[in-house]
Amino acid sequence: MDARTGLPLVGMVGGGQLARMTHQAAIALGQSLRVLARTPEDGAALVAADVHYGDHTDLDALRAFAKDCDVVTFDHEHVPNEHVRALAAEGIVVYPGADALRYAQDKRAMRERLGELGAPVPRWRPIRDSAELAAFGAEVGWPVIVKAVRGGYDGRGVWVLSRPDEVAPLLASGTELIAEERVALRRELAVQVARSPFGQVAVYPVVETVQRDGICVEVVAPAPGLSEQQALAAQRLAIDIATQLGVVGLLAVELFDTADGLVVNELAMRPHNSGHWTIEGARTSQFEQHLRAVLDYPMGETSLTAPVVVMANVLGGEEGGMPLDERLHHLFAEDPGVKVHLYGKRSRPGRKIGHVTVLGDDLAQLRKRAARAASWLREGK
Amino acid sequence: MDARTGLPLVGMVGGGQLARMTHQAAIALGQSLRVLARTPEDGAALVAADVHYGDHTDLDALRAFAKDCDVVTFDHEHVPNEHVRALAAEGIVVYPGADALRYAQDKRAMRERLGELGAPVPRWRPIRDSAELAAFGAEVGWPVIVKAVRGGYDGRGVWVLSRPDEVAPLLASGTELIAEERVALRRELAVQVARSPFGQVAVYPVVETVQRDGICVEVVAPAPGLSEQQALAAQRLAIDIATQLGVVGLLAVELFDTADGLVVNELAMRPHNSGHWTIEGARTSQFEQHLRAVLDYPMGETSLTAPVVVMANVLGGEEGGMPLDERLHHLFAEDPGVKVHLYGKRSRPGRKIGHVTVLGDDLAQLRKRAARAASWLREGK
Repeated sequence: MDARTGLPLVGMVGGGQLARMTHQAAIALGQSLRVLARTPEDGAALVAADVHYGDHTDLDALRAFAKDCDVVTFDHEHVPNEHVRALAAEGIVVYPGADALRYAQDKRAMRERLGELGAPVPRWRPIRDSAELAAFGAEVGWPVIVKAVRGGYDGRGVWVLSRPDEVAPLLASGTELIAEERVALRRELAVQVARSPFGQVAVYPVVETVQRDGICVEVVAPAPGLSEQQALAAQRLAIDIATQLGVVGLLAVELFDTADGLVVNELAMRPHNSGHWTIEGARTSQFEQHLRAVLDYPMGETSLTAPVVVMANVLGGEEGGMPLDERLHHLFAEDPGVKVHLYGKRSRPGRKIGHVTVLGDDLAQLRKRAARAASWLREGK
Repeated sequence: MDARTGLPLVGMVGGGQLARMTHQAAIALGQSLRVLARTPEDGAALVAADVHYGDHTDLDALRAFAKDCDVVTFDHEHVPNEHVRALAAEGIVVYPGADALRYAQDKRAMRERLGELGAPVPRWRPIRDSAELAAFGAEVGWPVIVKAVRGGYDGRGVWVLSRPDEVAPLLASGTELIAEERVALRRELAVQVARSPFGQVAVYPVVETVQRDGICVEVVAPAPGLSEQQALAAQRLAIDIATQLGVVGLLAVELFDTADGLVVNELAMRPHNSGHWTIEGARTSQFEQHLRAVLDYPMGETSLTAPVVVMANVLGGEEGGMPLDERLHHLFAEDPGVKVHLYGKRSRPGRKIGHVTVLGDDLAQLRKRAARAASWLREGK
C-alpha cells in the first residue's frame, strides 16, 4: 500500500512511451506509477514522480525496485523470464506472471502452445541449420519468414529469406531461429483483451493495423468491412488465448486476415501500439485497463466513443528539420481536432516519437487526416 | 526551451488537483510540467517529475521557480498581484498577466471593470461599515450577500447576512468587503473560454452547475433547456470578457440565470471545476487548452464528444469509513463506464477528493449515474 495515496503501489519495469502513457492513466486512478527506467531521458522518466534507475536484466535492480510495490508489471517483454520467476518466488506479485509472459518472450514456445490450444497459426519449424530451412522452404514455398525466437520488435528480428543459405549468417551469430510460411494475407488485424487475476476479461473492438517496413503506421478502429461474425471470432480467439495462457493485464493479439480465416501472428502482454487509439477512441483506454487488470479492479467499458477512430504513428524525420515546437504549431493550426501524443523522445529517422488520433464518421476522410497530421508532426508539412 | 524535450518549459504555480490534471494533459503534448508545490503530498507533487517547493507568496521562491521557465501560469489565484507584476518586469512571461489576473483576485476591481464593460452584474457596493451595509440592504432588500474582496473560494469568504450588524465581526477581522444583492436565480451556468497571446479565443458549450453549501457538486454539459440564442449570448459574454480583460489561458465565467437574463457571478483565470467535464466530454480538455493558450499554440476543438456529459464532484466522507481502494472496486463493479479522477488528497469531510464523469444520451439517467458514482466513491455505497 502506498502510504501517500492509500492505494496499492504499481511498479512498471521500463521507461518508454508505454510507461509514460500508463502513468498518465494512473494519475486519474489516484495512482503514481513507480517506473524502472534506464536513463533520466526515458519518456516516462521525464514525466513520472517516482522513478528508479536500473537495468531490467539485473535481478538485484529489479528486486530493489519491486521492494515496496504491491504489483509489478512491464512496458516491454525484455525482463528475463527467470528473473520474473525469481521475483514471484520471493513473494512479489508480478503481472503478467512468468508462465504467461514466456509466450510473449519466446516465439517458439508461443507457436507450440498456440498449436496445442488449436489456435490458427502459420506453418512453422525451429531452424538449426540451412538444411532444415531448405526442407521447410520446399514444403511451404519460398520465400519464408525467419524470426529470432527472442528479442525482436518493430520489424527487428524478422527476415524474409529466399534461399536456404541466407540463414547462415543469422545462425552464425548464435540467434535461435524459427521459420514460418509467408502467409498470403489480405490485411493485418489486432485485438486487445484485458484479463484480471479474478479472471474477468474485457475485449476491445477488432482493429485493422497497417504496417510499413515492419513498423505499424496506422490503426483503424473498428476494422473496416469485418462482419460481426468475423469480429466475434477474433474477439473469442483473443479471450481464449488470454484465458488459456493465464495472462493478467493487457494482451494484444496480432492477426493475419487470410482467405482461409484468421491466423495468429504475434502476442504482446502489455499495452500495445495497436491499442493507442483507445485513449480517446474507447471509453476505457488500454493503459487504464492494464492498470485495472493488474490491480484486480473490475474492468472498464471497451466500447468505441465514435463510429470510426484512426491512429497514425509519428516517425522521426530527417535531422536538422523544423523544430518540434514549430511543427506542433503548424499541426494545431491545420487541424484543431487532432489528438497528439508525444513521447518525449529525441527524433531519429524512423523512430516512433508519438502518435495522433482522429475520430469521426467518415473513414476515408479520417485516414487522410491522420496521415496528414502525422506528416505535419514529422516534418512540418 | 526545455533541453530534454525540445519544447518550451511551462511552470505552474500551485500543486493542487488543477496542476495534477494539467500535468496529465501536458504529457500528451510532449511536455513535463514544472510545478511549484508546498509539500510532497500535494496532488500534483505526487505525480509530476519536475517539482519545486516553495511558498507562492514568497517572491524569491517564485523567482527561483520561474528562472528556466518559458512561461509561468497558475493553478490558483493566490499569488500576490505585485509578485506577478515583479516577475513580468524581470522578463518572465506570466499568463494570465497581472493586469488580467487582478480581476480574478479582487472582486471589487472585477465588479467595477465588468460594470465599465457593460457586462450584466448584480447590484453591489463596497462596505466599510454597518451603516453602508444598512443603506445597501435597504436599497436591494435583505438578505444581502457579503464577500471578501480577496482570497475566497468554494463558499469561503462568502456570507449571507440578514441584518447590518452581522457585518461587524467580518469588518473587525480586517477583511475588505463588498456586498451584492441576492439575485433571484433560476440556476447557475458557467462558460469556459480560452484565449491565446495571439488573441485567438475558443469557447466551450455553456454548462449548468449545481452548488450545495457553496461547493459545486454537479456540472451538466450542455446546460439543459438553454436556447441556442441564450447559449450564444453566454458564450459571447465570456469571449468579450476574456478579450477585454486581456486574459491569456482559461477563463471560467460563472453566471446566474435569472428571469431578466444572465448575470456574471465570478471569474476564474485557470482551469476550473466547472470545466472538468471536458477531459472526456470535449474534444480538447480545458487542461490541454490552457496549456495550448499559454504556449500560444492554436486552440483545440471544443465540441462535445457525446450528447450529454455529467460531472459530479467527490467530496470526502466521514473518517474511518471504507478504504479508498475498496470503494474504487465497488464503483468499478457497479458502473464500468464511469470515468474516475482522483486527486491524491487525503479525505476530509466535505473536501473535494476527486470527480467522476459519465457520458451518454439520457440526461436524467446520467445525473443519477453520476450522483451514484460519487456516492460510491465517497462512502462505498
